[in-house]
Amino acid sequence: MENTYAVIMAGGVGSRFWPASRAKRPKQLLDLTDSGIPMVVGTVQRLLPEIPYERIIIITGKVTEEAVAEVLPEVPRENILAEPEGHNTAPCVGWAALHVRRMDPNSVMAVMPSDHLVLDPEGFLRKLKLAVKAARDGSLVMFGVRPRGPETGFGYVEMAGEVMPGVRKVVRFVEKPDFRTAETYVASWNFTWNSGMFFFHVDRILDEIHRQMPELGDGLDEIDAALDKNEMETVNRVYPTLPSQSIDYGIMEHAEKMLCVPVQFGWFDMGSWDAAYNLAKKDERCNACRAETIAFESKGCLVQADDRNKLVALVGVKNLVVVDTGDALLICNRKKTQNVKEIVNTLKERNRTDLL
Amino acid sequence: MENTYAVIMAGGVGSRFWPASRAKRPKQLLDLTDSGIPMVVGTVQRLLPEIPYERIIIITGKVTEEAVAEVLPEVPRENILAEPEGHNTAPCVGWAALHVRRMDPNSVMAVMPSDHLVLDPEGFLRKLKLAVKAARDGSLVMFGVRPRGPETGFGYVEMAGEVMPGVRKVVRFVEKPDFRTAETYVASWNFTWNSGMFFFHVDRILDEIHRQMPELGDGLDEIDAALDKNEMETVNRVYPTLPSQSIDYGIMEHAEKMLCVPVQFGWFDMGSWDAAYNLAKKDERCNACRAETIAFESKGCLVQADDRNKLVALVGVKNLVVVDTGDALLICNRKKTQNVKEIVNTLKERNRTDLL
Repeated sequence: MENTYAVIMAGGVGSRFWPASRAKRPKQLLDLTDSGIPMVVGTVQRLLPEIPYERIIIITGKVTEEAVAEVLPEVPRENILAEPEGHNTAPCVGWAALHVRRMDPNSVMAVMPSDHLVLDPEGFLRKLKLAVKAARDGSLVMFGVRPRGPETGFGYVEMAGEVMPGVRKVVRFVEKPDFRTAETYVASWNFTWNSGMFFFHVDRILDEIHRQMPELGDGLDEIDAALDKNEMETVNRVYPTLPSQSIDYGIMEHAEKMLCVPVQFGWFDMGSWDAAYNLAKKDERCNACRAETIAFESKGCLVQADDRNKLVALVGVKNLVVVDTGDALLICNRKKTQNVKEIVNTLKERNRTDLL
Repeated sequence: MENTYAVIMAGGVGSRFWPASRAKRPKQLLDLTDSGIPMVVGTVQRLLPEIPYERIIIITGKVTEEAVAEVLPEVPRENILAEPEGHNTAPCVGWAALHVRRMDPNSVMAVMPSDHLVLDPEGFLRKLKLAVKAARDGSLVMFGVRPRGPETGFGYVEMAGEVMPGVRKVVRFVEKPDFRTAETYVASWNFTWNSGMFFFHVDRILDEIHRQMPELGDGLDEIDAALDKNEMETVNRVYPTLPSQSIDYGIMEHAEKMLCVPVQFGWFDMGSWDAAYNLAKKDERCNACRAETIAFESKGCLVQADDRNKLVALVGVKNLVVVDTGDALLICNRKKTQNVKEIVNTLKERNRTDLL
């Protein structure tokens, strides 16, 4: 696919994966699926059959820049952009668009998070080609995931009729619904989950930013003018003044000509330890063990230890997440893994930067 | 109290306290009550107001001999006896009796385990004096603990009338009862828990051994003949041939002139992690934390980590025992702590001697 670039958003910590995730080792650098590679590497590898390393841009943070470069040595170093601070996804997408436009002003960008799992990579590539094709004419395109159930943890997108085979108009975005509402969405067949993966021509997105987020547009102009000169100096100065806004809410929700490619290629958002458990290989008692484990009358547990020599013994317990990183140990009810971020908040209050 | 010796039985591993307890660091060497001292040291200190170090004999195993000597430097080194292998308590008491008789042939021995907790040490000493007095004339005497409830984990002793104030005749020993039977015992007021603490004149116990366990008596005679010569050589040869039998079952249950001193000085048998939890200091959510712990919506847990810098986070869990020793981690339902020994059995099967 010529004139196509991928922008992978690899900022953030993923504090719900504490204690494995840390500021310097955020979740996209973790191998949460036990596949042998960090999630961000999996995200890149999934694209490679269609988009070569030279056309992949990764946006991450200053503290993780080196670690990202280390696990992805094939990505040109100048394609790894380090934000001085996180400002949600709109500034991130905008900055990346400047780089893409400089490399090829007639290109389509595929923007995606670095912490998603795709079980059917060939299906992913087929839909990628379709979405890029749909974006060529200036449309904003997104992947909408066919709901597997009435999930209340995702935003939904309502679709209208097809504009071409496999591509439908977007009627509206809706925030995370309550359970009953989610049930009606799933029953209607016109709603998909917002995957957070978007496709657009570089001109279209920059135009849209200038129109809908003029403050961000001005900031990006300043950075653009400095691209081949003092870029990072300018970024460091301008970034803190930019609005913190998601590309979804800041741009997509109110944009014209928004299209959706409904997909079902085994997409999973690695949002919590429970998601990691659900995707993990399990033994006959539904325990997923990434450490030497003796489980006595225990089931439904995810066990992982950084020290692979450590022995973990479970006696009479069920549905626990156990994560041992040497300096910290998490024991969490598998139905309460969303609350792991409360632990991280407490650590911040206690100023335990060594564990953050 | 002149002519009185204490024999502290400090053999065994206490595998229900794995992973804290190990062959080289058995439970009596652990500070399971978080008091700052190992249990065996607490047992000695409790006696000191009445029985000096020189009249305290500790029987332990070969692998733990040095460790015991290290935590109890005041006990004369020759008073620490190391069994070549464990053969339950009858041979252990018999061997200690030989040493006591040599030191003072007219003495009374107080025999007790090293892993009991006593919350009222002064009450203990008062009853100790009474029991020793009752044993002077040749009676076999025991402490019977007033039941705190219909426990099914202890043996019981039925008592008849008083022979002197605070001392009653023993009618019979009964094995661990079922719950309904235990209830009738508790209701009758004539039953006490068998504490495993016994008091007898050295002549009486050696006579009794010769009468009821002649094989053991013969073995002890051999060792006795070698006491000041090649004692350990003889012990190493003879011990493996001795019967493995408890002093309770082998001697006490069928002995004449058996007396019981009923006691209630806050006696606790440290039999499991749940017992350790019950005796531990707890916070307002009933968590007993011996590690830096952040507990979110969690209660009723015992948390301990050898590495005091390790942070343990609990999220949405209750009634767990969490013990981290660096090389091993136990997570156990607090109502299933008896099953911890199953983990130890599995480790034996796997030949993981490093963790035993």
